Amino acid sequence: MPRTYSRDRKAKNVKRRYDIDSLTDVALLVFARKGYDGASMDDVAAEAGITKASIYHHVSGKEELLARGFNRALDALFAIFEEPDAAKGSPSARLRYIVRRVAETTTAHLAEVTVLFRARGNSQVERDALERRRKFDRSVADLIVQAQHAGEVRTDLDAGLVARLCFGMSNSIVEWYRPSGAIDAATITTAILAVLFEGLT
Amino acid sequence: MPRTYSRDRKAKNVKRRYDIDSLTDVALLVFARKGYDGASMDDVAAEAGITKASIYHHVSGKEELLARGFNRALDALFAIFEEPDAAKGSPSARLRYIVRRVAETTTAHLAEVTVLFRARGNSQVERDALERRRKFDRSVADLIVQAQHAGEVRTDLDAGLVARLCFGMSNSIVEWYRPSGAIDAATITTAILAVLFEGLT
Repeated sequence: MPRTYSRDRKAKNVKRRYDIDSLTDVALLVFARKGYDGASMDDVAAEAGITKASIYHHVSGKEELLARGFNRALDALFAIFEEPDAAKGSPSARLRYIVRRVAETTTAHLAEVTVLFRARGNSQVERDALERRRKFDRSVADLIVQAQHAGEVRTDLDAGLVARLCFGMSNSIVEWYRPSGAIDAATITTAILAVLFEGLT
Repeated sequence: MPRTYSRDRKAKNVKRRYDIDSLTDVALLVFARKGYDGASMDDVAAEAGITKASIYHHVSGKEELLARGFNRALDALFAIFEEPDAAKGSPSARLRYIVRRVAETTTAHLAEVTVLFRARGNSQVERDALERRRKFDRSVADLIVQAQHAGEVRTDLDAGLVARLCFGMSNSIVEWYRPSGAIDAATITTAILAVLFEGLT
């Protein structure tokens, strides 16, 4: 069984062994830190502690690592819709549940989601990911409309705009959250729900 | 007097003339669209419709254009604190004013602020900009603390975290707002204040 990335890092003098998944882990950390366009395969190789040639043994190139990151993030986000609580209760209860799970997914898959949120559409891989992401956002906007029709959410604001602001708040997690930081993921999730549904005052 | 960028674009067959400011305008549009690391000086030259050599007549390189963009965005943001209404009234009134003006500044200086918000700290220029931006964020967090002490803002949430979520919502404007789009800047600003201070329900 290949070693995980974190265990490899501790065992500095042990020859590192990667499979495609643990190599993707390393690449996503590098992409999240430097930006995809700013990161080179040399950076990935240096972070992994192996040669660039060894990386190409596993993947066709940088873009394949990016595509794997996008798919991980998007699969994790779409999986939320399949959870029982996402389909249970009133529209606003489902909305709260989904917003909470999106925030949790963002902190749990930080590198993947960071790289996804920064995709600009510079390549077909990025454009495909943006298209899937837009589908996700539209599903949430539809749920906001349902909550408005049920009289559970204020109707003076456009549902699409509310969805964007809601994701704006939640997505910003990737800019400042660090697993080792002072604020834990549960506190962030609670604050997002509090501000979004109840407001500051 | 040099022509402005937008007038040049209309007069396709007229020889384009730039000064450092109008050239920065063009570069920022390119950086905002492709990402700074993904954009080359060839891209900037192509967008400007001039040769790369003509660009280097005005600037030392890509990084100088980036630094100019950062300074424009940060100067515009810090100027908000100097406005009379930013120092008038209760802490929560000042907070509301500043949040509104940050959103307005984001839509008014879209390319500059987009490039600023995407800075990762890959170079000294980026790290200096991030340091100035953190100072701005801290001033707003201080104001949230004052509003909490005045009993105007809920005290069950950490002020620093609230400031991050507030900027997360507001900063997300750069991801989806387009001046020619269906949603105008005033509607966005109103929605941000409504969600942030009153919540969705």
